[in-house]
Amino acid sequence: MAPLKSWLKIDPISHFSMHNIPFGVISTSTHKQPRTAIAIGSYALDLHAFAQGNGFSKLSAIQPHQAVFSQTTLNAFAALGRPIHKVVREYLQSVFLRDGPFSEVLQQNEALQKEALLPLDQVKTHLPMQIGDYTDFYAGLNHAYNVGVLFRGPANALQPNYKHLPVGYHGRASSVVVSGTPIRRPTGQILAHPAAEKKEPILSPCRKLDIELELGCFVCKPNPMGQPISVADAPDHLFGVVLMNDWSARDIQAWEYVPLGPFNSKNFGTTISPWVVLMDALEPFKTTGLANDTPLLPYLDEKDRQSHYKIDLSFALTPPSGDTTILSRTSATQLLFSFPQMLAHHTIGGCPFNVGDLMGSGTISGTAKEEKGALLEQTENGKGKVELANGETRTFLEDGDTVSLTGHCGYESGGIVGFGECIGRIEPALEMNF
Amino acid sequence: MAPLKSWLKIDPISHFSMHNIPFGVISTSTHKQPRTAIAIGSYALDLHAFAQGNGFSKLSAIQPHQAVFSQTTLNAFAALGRPIHKVVREYLQSVFLRDGPFSEVLQQNEALQKEALLPLDQVKTHLPMQIGDYTDFYAGLNHAYNVGVLFRGPANALQPNYKHLPVGYHGRASSVVVSGTPIRRPTGQILAHPAAEKKEPILSPCRKLDIELELGCFVCKPNPMGQPISVADAPDHLFGVVLMNDWSARDIQAWEYVPLGPFNSKNFGTTISPWVVLMDALEPFKTTGLANDTPLLPYLDEKDRQSHYKIDLSFALTPPSGDTTILSRTSATQLLFSFPQMLAHHTIGGCPFNVGDLMGSGTISGTAKEEKGALLEQTENGKGKVELANGETRTFLEDGDTVSLTGHCGYESGGIVGFGECIGRIEPALEMNF
Repeated sequence: MAPLKSWLKIDPISHFSMHNIPFGVISTSTHKQPRTAIAIGSYALDLHAFAQGNGFSKLSAIQPHQAVFSQTTLNAFAALGRPIHKVVREYLQSVFLRDGPFSEVLQQNEALQKEALLPLDQVKTHLPMQIGDYTDFYAGLNHAYNVGVLFRGPANALQPNYKHLPVGYHGRASSVVVSGTPIRRPTGQILAHPAAEKKEPILSPCRKLDIELELGCFVCKPNPMGQPISVADAPDHLFGVVLMNDWSARDIQAWEYVPLGPFNSKNFGTTISPWVVLMDALEPFKTTGLANDTPLLPYLDEKDRQSHYKIDLSFALTPPSGDTTILSRTSATQLLFSFPQMLAHHTIGGCPFNVGDLMGSGTISGTAKEEKGALLEQTENGKGKVELANGETRTFLEDGDTVSLTGHCGYESGGIVGFGECIGRIEPALEMNF
Repeated sequence: MAPLKSWLKIDPISHFSMHNIPFGVISTSTHKQPRTAIAIGSYALDLHAFAQGNGFSKLSAIQPHQAVFSQTTLNAFAALGRPIHKVVREYLQSVFLRDGPFSEVLQQNEALQKEALLPLDQVKTHLPMQIGDYTDFYAGLNHAYNVGVLFRGPANALQPNYKHLPVGYHGRASSVVVSGTPIRRPTGQILAHPAAEKKEPILSPCRKLDIELELGCFVCKPNPMGQPISVADAPDHLFGVVLMNDWSARDIQAWEYVPLGPFNSKNFGTTISPWVVLMDALEPFKTTGLANDTPLLPYLDEKDRQSHYKIDLSFALTPPSGDTTILSRTSATQLLFSFPQMLAHHTIGGCPFNVGDLMGSGTISGTAKEEKGALLEQTENGKGKVELANGETRTFLEDGDTVSLTGHCGYESGGIVGFGECIGRIEPALEMNF
C-alpha cells in the first residue's frame, strides 16, 4: 500500500497520518466548549468549526447529522453507526489528499483553515466518550499466566475457565480519565505483613502501585436487555480503539479481591488515550491472536479468526529527574480473545450495552521480561527490579513517576496508524487525618 | 409519635403514609413524558404539574429550582442536596396535612388536584435515577457466612478480609431496571457436571436462577477523583433507599467468578423499587446493625453506630398458577456495615462518585431458614427445597415465577414508611441458534 499524500505537511513518523483520522474531543484557551475533532499530523481539525464552515458540503450522507460534531463527546457521532463512520473518515481523507477531489473545501479555504485547523500542541483533549459502563477483560494470556505463576505456581497458573471464556469484571466508569490527568496514589487497606498468620490490615498509601498496558474498545451500537450480540454481528457494534492504562494497587488488590474481585485497587483511576482510532483505520492490520488450544463453544467461535490487530505497543517510565526508559515492548497479537468475542460473551446472558460503553482487553504481555505489560510481572511482585536509564531502579511506581503508553500499526508501510500517547503522572497520596 | 393525619384518604396500612413522601418518576397514558412525583397513599402527586400549578408558591427555597421537577429522572432534584430534600419533603407533608397551614395549595384547589393528583394504579413508574455507576456490596454477614459454609465449610466460611472492610464489587449500571420489568432467564456457560475432574462447560439457560434481597442507596453529592468521603461526612452524600433484587445465576457464577468476581451471573438484570425513600424519612428508624467483633480501622469507625435502619423486609414467590408464598422475612439490621461505611470505604482510595450512583447492601439474611434472603441459602444450593402454598416446591426459580420484595418501617407507630414492591417475573430463556 503506497502511503496517501496530503497537501498538509505531515511528519512521516506522525501517528496521525492520512491513514488514521482518529476522532477525539478538544477545547482551546479561546474556545473552552469541548467539541469533536480529528487528529491529522500535528494538527487537530475542529469538526464543529469545519461543519459550521460548510466543510461537509460535499458529503450529503452527513448533512442531516452535522449537529453531532458540536457535541461535547463522540457518543452522538458513534451512534450514527459504522457505515457513516466509514464515509466520514474517507471524506476527511479526501479533503486532506494532495490533488484530491475536494481541495476547495479546506486547502483553498484559508479562512476555514484558520478557524478549524489548530496546532495539536494548542488544544486540550478531553475524555472522548461519555462512558456508561466500563468492563475490563483479562484476555492477555501471557499476563494471566505470569500472574497465576506468581500466586499459585505454574501447575495452577490459569484457572479452569480461562481458555473457555474471556474472563472479565465490571470496572468503575467514573474513574476513567483522559491522558494527562494526574493520578493520585491511592490509600487503602493493605497487609503490612502478608505472610503473617493473623491478617491485620493497616490503612496506608499503596506501596505497590502498578500500571497495566491495555487496549480499550468503545461500543457504538446498543443492544436491548435480554438480546445477545452474536460474535458475527459484534464488529458492527465496535466504534474504535484507544490505549488504556489500568492503574493497579497490587497490595490493596491482594487483600480485598477475595471473593468478589478487584475493587478499590482499580477504581482510583484508569487512563485512556484521547484519540479514538476507528475500526476502519485498523482494518488493514487485522491478524490472528494467540492460538487457543481449547475448543470454544459455538457462540465464541469466530469463523474468521482475523479479528485481532498487529499493533506494536510499549510503555515507558520517566522518573522526576527526567530520563525516559522504555520498559516494555509487546504486541496486541498477544491476546487470546478478540473484542468481538468479548462483546459476544458479555452479552450472551442478555447484558445491555449503550453507546459509549468501554471494554478493556486486559494487560497485554509477551513472554520475555521486557515484553511484560505490568511491573508486577517484570519484578515478580517486587522481588526483582527494573533498571532505569538514569541508574535508578523500580519495583513499583514512585511519586512523580510519569508512565506513557504508546501504540501504532503500519510503521513499515509508511502509513502509520498510531494512538499517540496515554500518559499519567503519580501524585503523592493524600495526607489522611486518621 | 402520633401519626400525621391528612385530608387525603390514606389507608392506615399504606406504605406511602404522611410519614414517608418517597420520590419517583412517572408517566401516564395521556402524558407519556416521564417526570418526577411523590407517592402518597394510593396517589402519585405529579410534581411537574404541581410546580406548574404554583403548588410550590409557599416554599421560597425551591422557587429557583422548580425545573428539577420536570426532569425525566430525580438526579437534578437529588443534586440540590439534603437540606433542600428536607424542606421539600416537609413542605409536601404540610400540603397534605389535615387542617395544615397550606390547605389552599391543593386541598382547596380542585383544578390542581385533577391535574396533579393521579391514582397510583393509573401511572407507570420509571427508573428513578440515571445511574452512572452501580456497586454491590456484601455486607449481609449471615448471607456471607451461609454462602461461605456451602462452598468452603464452616471453618473458612468468611474470608480473612470480611469483617475488616465492606467487601464489594462493581456491578453493571445498564442492567438496573425498575420494578415490573420482565427478567429473561440468562443463557451462559455452566458446568453440567461440576464435580467432574475435567471442567467442560456447556452453553445453557441458567438452571440455578436465584434472587437476592437487598437494599440500594442512591448518592446525591459527588466527590472529585482523589478525594475520599469520610464516614462522618458520608450521610450528606446519601439521597435515599430502595429495595433491590440482585437476580443471580448461580451456575454461571460458580464457573466464571474466579479470579475476578461475578460477571454475567449478575449483569442480566437488577431490579429496584420505583419510589426512593429519602434518608430523612428513615431517620426515626435508625438503629445499630450487627455487632462487629473485629476492631475497625479509624476511617470506618462510626462514632455514632446508629447508621442502620429497622426495616422489615420480605420476599414472596408467585408461581404461574397464582398462589403467593412469603419465603423469607428478615430485617435490614442484619448488616455488618452501613451505607456511610460503604461509601467511606469505596472512596478511601479516591474513587469519584456522581449524583445517581447506586450502592447495593448485599443480600440480607437472618439466621433461620425462613429469614434467608436467597434461594441458594434456603435450599443449600439446590440440595433442599422450599415449599409453596399451592403444593409445588422450588430449588431455584422457574419460568413464569414472579418474585416480589417488600419492606417497611414504623408499622407499630401507625406512621408507615414503606418501599412498596420490587417485582420481577421470569421469562423463558431466549432460544439460541447455536
